[in-house]
Amino acid sequence: MRSQFSLLQQSQQSALYHNSLALPRHEYRVVALMRALGALSRGELAQHLGYSRATITGLAKTLIDGGILQEIAGTQSTGGRRPRLLDFNPQFAYVVGVDMGATSVDVGLADFRGDLLLRHQEPIDVRDGPEPVLDRVIAITQDLIGRCGVEPARVLSMGIGVPGPVDFVNGVLSVPPIMPGWERYPIRQKIQQTFPHMTVVVDNDVNMMALGELRAGVGRGVDNFIYVKVGTGIGAGIVVGGEIYRGSTGSAGDIGHIQADRNGPVCHCGNIGCIEAMASGSALARQAMQAAQSGRSPILAQYLASGVQQLTAEHVGSAAHAGDKVAMELIMTSGTLIGEVLAGVVNFFNPSLILIGGGVANIGTQFLATIRRGVLSRSLPLSTQHLRIDYSPMGEDAGVTGAVALALEYLFVIKS
Amino acid sequence: MRSQFSLLQQSQQSALYHNSLALPRHEYRVVALMRALGALSRGELAQHLGYSRATITGLAKTLIDGGILQEIAGTQSTGGRRPRLLDFNPQFAYVVGVDMGATSVDVGLADFRGDLLLRHQEPIDVRDGPEPVLDRVIAITQDLIGRCGVEPARVLSMGIGVPGPVDFVNGVLSVPPIMPGWERYPIRQKIQQTFPHMTVVVDNDVNMMALGELRAGVGRGVDNFIYVKVGTGIGAGIVVGGEIYRGSTGSAGDIGHIQADRNGPVCHCGNIGCIEAMASGSALARQAMQAAQSGRSPILAQYLASGVQQLTAEHVGSAAHAGDKVAMELIMTSGTLIGEVLAGVVNFFNPSLILIGGGVANIGTQFLATIRRGVLSRSLPLSTQHLRIDYSPMGEDAGVTGAVALALEYLFVIKS
Repeated sequence: MRSQFSLLQQSQQSALYHNSLALPRHEYRVVALMRALGALSRGELAQHLGYSRATITGLAKTLIDGGILQEIAGTQSTGGRRPRLLDFNPQFAYVVGVDMGATSVDVGLADFRGDLLLRHQEPIDVRDGPEPVLDRVIAITQDLIGRCGVEPARVLSMGIGVPGPVDFVNGVLSVPPIMPGWERYPIRQKIQQTFPHMTVVVDNDVNMMALGELRAGVGRGVDNFIYVKVGTGIGAGIVVGGEIYRGSTGSAGDIGHIQADRNGPVCHCGNIGCIEAMASGSALARQAMQAAQSGRSPILAQYLASGVQQLTAEHVGSAAHAGDKVAMELIMTSGTLIGEVLAGVVNFFNPSLILIGGGVANIGTQFLATIRRGVLSRSLPLSTQHLRIDYSPMGEDAGVTGAVALALEYLFVIKS
Repeated sequence: MRSQFSLLQQSQQSALYHNSLALPRHEYRVVALMRALGALSRGELAQHLGYSRATITGLAKTLIDGGILQEIAGTQSTGGRRPRLLDFNPQFAYVVGVDMGATSVDVGLADFRGDLLLRHQEPIDVRDGPEPVLDRVIAITQDLIGRCGVEPARVLSMGIGVPGPVDFVNGVLSVPPIMPGWERYPIRQKIQQTFPHMTVVVDNDVNMMALGELRAGVGRGVDNFIYVKVGTGIGAGIVVGGEIYRGSTGSAGDIGHIQADRNGPVCHCGNIGCIEAMASGSALARQAMQAAQSGRSPILAQYLASGVQQLTAEHVGSAAHAGDKVAMELIMTSGTLIGEVLAGVVNFFNPSLILIGGGVANIGTQFLATIRRGVLSRSLPLSTQHLRIDYSPMGEDAGVTGAVALALEYLFVIKS
C-alpha cells in the first residue's frame, strides 16, 4: 500500500508523467483495475475496490461522461437478464507500441481498449545509433496514424521496448553493451520533439513481453511469474503481485550473466561460464558453426556448403528436426543449462508460471522439455508443485502487445 | 492494487483473520501506513494517503476515540512550534512474538507500539514434536503476561516464526525436513485452545527476521531487500515494495538448495553441490571436524583435544581469529560460495540491501568481506552500484522483533 503511493508521488514529479491525464484517485483506481481485469460489471467493481454500489455508480457516470468508459452488454446471460459491463471506449485515445530488437523494429497503433489497428515491422540495426533508428520509429508512427485515419492529437502515448537495461523514470538506457551511442540518450525527448503531447514510456524489452502476457495473455490474473527471453542474449521479465518488478536500479531480471558452469567459457562481460555465453541463440549459433566446420554435424555442414553464411539457432532446430544428433545435443545442453539456472530462480522466487519466449523458443519442443527437466531436477518439490513452464503463447507478439499495454498504463496519473 | 485487495478478500475468509478486529477501510489504511513509517503528523498522513486534511482529521479522531492512536509531541521544532504527531496508544493491545529455532525458543511480550515489555529464551528441541514444544510456548506466554501484569484479554495476537517452509494462510509447516511430526500440524488451533481470542500468525523464521528489520530496523523505508540467514541451514527472507514476498506456494527465499558447485558434495536433499551442503554452519562444523581430525588445523585439533565434543562454526571463527590458516580458509571458501550464489540472486532481483544474519554471522568480519567480494565478482555493475551488503544490525533480535511486527500486522482486518 505504502510503496504504491510513494512510487506514484515520486514519479509524478518526473518527466514520465509530464503529459499524462490527471484523474481523481477513485476514478484512477477504477481504470487501473479494469486494465488488469478487463471489462467488469458495477457490482464487480464495487466488490474489488471496496466501494459502495452508489459510489461506483457515480464514478462510472463520471467516466462514461468523460468518454473514457462505455457500457457494453455482457456475454453471460443470468436468468434471461444480461449483465451490463463497463468497458473502455476504444475511441477515447490511441497509443503506439514499439518493440525494438537489435535487428528489427515492430510498431503497432492501438485503440484505447488495446486492440491493434495496424502494425508494421521492418529490419533496423540498433548499432546505427539512436537518431536514425528513432527517426524511423517516428516515420512509421506517422505513417500508421495516417493510414488508420486517426486524429493525430488523440494519439496520446507511446511505449517503447529496448534490448537493454533501462533507467525507467528517466526513460534512458543505462549500459547497453550491444547498443553503442544509446547510453543515456534522451529517447523520450527525441520522440516528443515530433509528438510533444505524447506520454513516452521506455522499458526493457523483456519487461514489455512479460507485461503483454500479464495484461492480455496467459499471465492475466497470475500474481507471480517470469517471462524468459532466449534470443541473442538471455533475460527475464518479472511480475510480482500483478505488476512488473524492475528492482532497485531497473536491472531486475538480468539473468543472462548468472553462472551456469564455473568451468565454462569466458563471456563478453568478462566473467566465466555465464548462461548467456553457453546457452543463448548466439551461443547455439557459435556451437553450430564449430560442429559444421569440424564435420561433427553432417546436416549443419550441409547448410554451410549450400551457401548459408552464418548458422543460427533456427538452423540447429531444423537440423535436429531432420535427425542430426549433434544438433539435438546442442539443444539439449542449452535447455538443461537454462533449466538449471532457472531452478535457482525458482527456489528464490517461487513463481507459479515461467513463460519462455524469444527467437530460440521457435526451435522445437525438445528445447522446452529439457528446460523443464533441468528446473525439476534442481528445484525443491514445494517450489515446483504448482509451477507451469511453457512457451509464451503470444510469442513474437508479446513485445508489441506489452508496449501497447505500457503506453495505456501511463496515460493517466492520479490528480494530486 | 488489484492483487492487494484480492489477497485480502481471499484471506478474510480464512482462519487467519478469524479473531482480527475489523476496521473500516480508510482507518485501516491509516494504521497500516503508520506500521510501515512510524509516528506521523496529520499533514504527512494526508499527503501519503491522498486524503484531504479534513478527512484525516476525522479519521484521526475516530482512531483516537477508539483508543488505537494517541497524540504525542514531535521532536522536531519548526520555528518554535512543535508538530503534534499521531502514534499508537501502547496500551490498546498487547502481542506475543515467538522465534522458534531448531534448538531454542525466544518469546517476547510487546505493547501495541511494538516495544518489548519482557522476553524469555530457553533451549528446546523441535524434534520433540509440536505438542511439548508448543506447550512450553504457551506456558512461557502465560508467565510473561502474568509477570507484566497485563490483562490477558488484551493480549490479542501472536506471531510465530518456525524454521521451515510455511503454508501461510493455514498456519502450518509444509515439508519440514528437520522437524518430524510438524508437517501440517495445526499450530494455530493448538495455541487457540489456550488463547481462543488470539489471532495467530505462523511464518517462516527468515521471513520474520526480514520483517523485523523492515518494520523496526535498517530495512525501514527500503523497498526491495533480502535477509539471508546463515545458520544450520541457509535461507532468505524477501521484501518487495515494503512487504514480505512469500511466493506462490510460500517457499520463496529457499536459496539453501541453489547449486554452488556442480562438482560439490551430495546434500541431504539428494542434489549435488547445494550451497547449504557447502557453506552453512553445519557444513563449516563438518569441515572443521575433518580439519581437526586430519591434523591440518592445529588450533581446531587443540579444541577437540581439550574436550569439545562437536566443533561448530563459532570454533572455526575463533580459530581463524587466533591465526589458524585452515580455519580462515574454511571461512573464506564459505563466504565466497555464498557470495557467488547471492550474485545470481542480485542479477535476478536487483535489491538495494542484503542483510546477513544467523549464527554464522557471528564468526567475524572476514566472512562478510568474502561474501561481498563474491557478490561483486559475479554481479553486473548496474545491479551492484547502489547495493549495500551488511550483517543484520538486529542480529539475534531480528526474529522476535519480526514476530511482534507480524502479530501487530494481522491484528486488524478491513471491514467488508
